[in-house]
Amino acid sequence: MKEFIFLNGQIIPAEEANLHVSDLGLLRGYGIFDFFRAIDGKPIFIEDHLDRFENSAKLMGLPMPSTREELKNIILEIIRLHPHKLLGLKMIMTGGYSPDGYTPTENPNLLVFGKPFEFKPADVGMNLMSFDYRREIPEIKTLSYITPIRALGKMKASGADDLLYHQNGLISESSRSNIFVIKNEKIITPVDGALFGVTRKHVLNIAKKHFVVEERDLSTKEYWEADEVFTTGSTKRIIAITQTDTKIFSEGKVGKITKKLQDLFLEHEKNSN
Amino acid sequence: MKEFIFLNGQIIPAEEANLHVSDLGLLRGYGIFDFFRAIDGKPIFIEDHLDRFENSAKLMGLPMPSTREELKNIILEIIRLHPHKLLGLKMIMTGGYSPDGYTPTENPNLLVFGKPFEFKPADVGMNLMSFDYRREIPEIKTLSYITPIRALGKMKASGADDLLYHQNGLISESSRSNIFVIKNEKIITPVDGALFGVTRKHVLNIAKKHFVVEERDLSTKEYWEADEVFTTGSTKRIIAITQTDTKIFSEGKVGKITKKLQDLFLEHEKNSN
Repeated sequence: MKEFIFLNGQIIPAEEANLHVSDLGLLRGYGIFDFFRAIDGKPIFIEDHLDRFENSAKLMGLPMPSTREELKNIILEIIRLHPHKLLGLKMIMTGGYSPDGYTPTENPNLLVFGKPFEFKPADVGMNLMSFDYRREIPEIKTLSYITPIRALGKMKASGADDLLYHQNGLISESSRSNIFVIKNEKIITPVDGALFGVTRKHVLNIAKKHFVVEERDLSTKEYWEADEVFTTGSTKRIIAITQTDTKIFSEGKVGKITKKLQDLFLEHEKNSN
Repeated sequence: MKEFIFLNGQIIPAEEANLHVSDLGLLRGYGIFDFFRAIDGKPIFIEDHLDRFENSAKLMGLPMPSTREELKNIILEIIRLHPHKLLGLKMIMTGGYSPDGYTPTENPNLLVFGKPFEFKPADVGMNLMSFDYRREIPEIKTLSYITPIRALGKMKASGADDLLYHQNGLISESSRSNIFVIKNEKIITPVDGALFGVTRKHVLNIAKKHFVVEERDLSTKEYWEADEVFTTGSTKRIIAITQTDTKIFSEGKVGKITKKLQDLFLEHEKNSN
């Protein structure tokens, strides 16, 4: 199927979507993105993702080149052009074509594209490799992924699916999703150093109706002693973490409470806007 | 004057130098660069810069798409096409066009371009703003500049020319150059957290012939108590730091030892091949 990309006001064939090398995303990593899903043509939690994208832009000092309504229409058009059952959508905005190669411009480069994706199976757990790291600017969804990409080889060699970031005795997040632990039926998720995911937010809202939930610092000690661990993200929904390094959680299976949250989340997602 | 850019094997007009949006430098900030000068058509310290570029590539797991000799010939051709008295040359290499938007490829994108530049006047000091920060991967010249670019507004509002990075009581570097302090005729430059600049290396070699020189951790306390401070970089050579925050160094003028090093460096640069 032919793919299209929205780039600076135009929808063009994907293979023609080029940026000049003076783009500040390329030259200085100066840019933001967001990623979300459309299921059967319906974007999921789109207002939340636009909120976060606009907030990332604000924190990076990048003016939005489109109104929210315009951006939403662009997204809907990209969805219409890619009628996959499951479509992953990505918005990227950079500091624009910078004459001095350093200073952001008033004209960011904005692109939106979609690619088919598959959910990870909900009944299979993930394996994390603990990794001493804290993202430089966790509150912004920036383009900076050098450190986890450099760690890909070591991670794959160890059989892990993703990294578990910790630093100074605190857990922050995984490289591409949020972390929750369950201890004695209490659900805890880190605040410091974590990007506040959209799925995280919805899971918190759901969980609070059924469990005691704490958003606060989470120590590595608490992590290792957890009854169940799970991670949340747009392409994952809720996935059990059944192993981290050599430690096995919930007997290597999806834990009871994790399973319950998975079911509640699916129901909630179905009923969203 | 018409500008040209070397991009993946071809020299093309600068305005046509585009990368597809699947480039991993753009999508994930996954790339390296190096910057050096040509004076009257002669590249300065080119072997050092190629050493560093190759080392950055190695540490990022990026294969070099050209031999050293080929890359040198590309650089010389870019210099020939831009016969400015002072030409700043930049090499950039990214993780290539990544099908999954995350994993580096075996085919990096490599570009080389040149732009005229001007040296900062050697008899004028710079003003730094102290900034609590340490670069994430100081040993690699990566494309990551989000934090200093975000700080540009505050920096300019304070009248500063650049940032002085410090963290946990230690000075590491400036956002775009190395830092040296002088105390009782002893010259000290930080090791931990600093990118080892090519100019830094040559200044160290020169300074060692005339002064006691220490490469080691440098505390913020020592910084504030320095007799003279200077910074080194490819577009700066040696520039005095005459102010940092509200503190004035060497009575706001280029200090005696800094001046002596400036003269020695100019002589050394002239004689370099």
